Amino acid sequence: MQASDLLETRMIDSALRAWKSNADRIDKFFGALSPEQLEQEVAPRRNRLIYLWGHIAALNDGLFPLVGLGPRLYPEMEVMFIANSDRADITVYSAEQVKQAWNQINKRLLSEFSCWSPAEWLERHADVSAEDFLREPHRNRYTVFLNRNTHMAFHFGQAILTKPRDRRV
Amino acid sequence: MQASDLLETRMIDSALRAWKSNADRIDKFFGALSPEQLEQEVAPRRNRLIYLWGHIAALNDGLFPLVGLGPRLYPEMEVMFIANSDRADITVYSAEQVKQAWNQINKRLLSEFSCWSPAEWLERHADVSAEDFLREPHRNRYTVFLNRNTHMAFHFGQAILTKPRDRRV
Repeated sequence: MQASDLLETRMIDSALRAWKSNADRIDKFFGALSPEQLEQEVAPRRNRLIYLWGHIAALNDGLFPLVGLGPRLYPEMEVMFIANSDRADITVYSAEQVKQAWNQINKRLLSEFSCWSPAEWLERHADVSAEDFLREPHRNRYTVFLNRNTHMAFHFGQAILTKPRDRRV
Repeated sequence: MQASDLLETRMIDSALRAWKSNADRIDKFFGALSPEQLEQEVAPRRNRLIYLWGHIAALNDGLFPLVGLGPRLYPEMEVMFIANSDRADITVYSAEQVKQAWNQINKRLLSEFSCWSPAEWLERHADVSAEDFLREPHRNRYTVFLNRNTHMAFHFGQAILTKPRDRRV
């Protein structure tokens, strides 16, 4: 048994580790691909890899305002990779730009998250009012963080389908 | 601010909600498909939906021994959906059997998880020795649970590619 304050610290550690392990796999996978390889579709007529990478990065970037850490770092990505579908008639980032944005967003997110106390992790997120939060205390930063992590995994599972002869599923 | 014991309880609540929301989407998606539709591949020459559903269920079933809740409920699924690839020359469950196993496994898992205290959530899992756990306390049930949740999302992202004209990515 451990002191009670250690329990919540360990739960934050678990969540950060789950995030890092997921983000590292995604980083390694996309980072190894050439701009040409990033043009591949994950399945016929489905999103290209470059779009999915930008989409994951843009959703992560949206965490900054959602958890009260200030504005997005790359606000133009919202239009490119969330509001619009892949291959919309708009100018989007190059592979190099997506890579740089992905790196900066994740570096800054982890650096901010590492400073929060357990109580700060459980503060309400920006999309819930103080009044609603009293009734629904689960609408906090920690819940948002866990759900954003499963969002990354959801799309990474799609991206990995382009990998030749992936041993497992 | 809230009492310290409430912090860890709320983090457990967040993790359970993230799991349920993910499992519910998976349940709704696969549960609506006919045995014929479950024969679809998620991408050319990739796993069929029935295999992915069985795979997710089998991995969840593996949580019972991993977190010290006794043996798997459907041990034969390990051979069908983990040890072997899709379309291996072995007898596998029918769609109805996979559905039933998926339901039973998830029902029992959630019922067991709901009984744990915060300290019980942070006990070591079965694949780490007591000695190693002293040095690596993150190898606990809570971490395993978070990672198994991203595993579900990873494969659900693949399965959803078979859905006609899915609006978003």
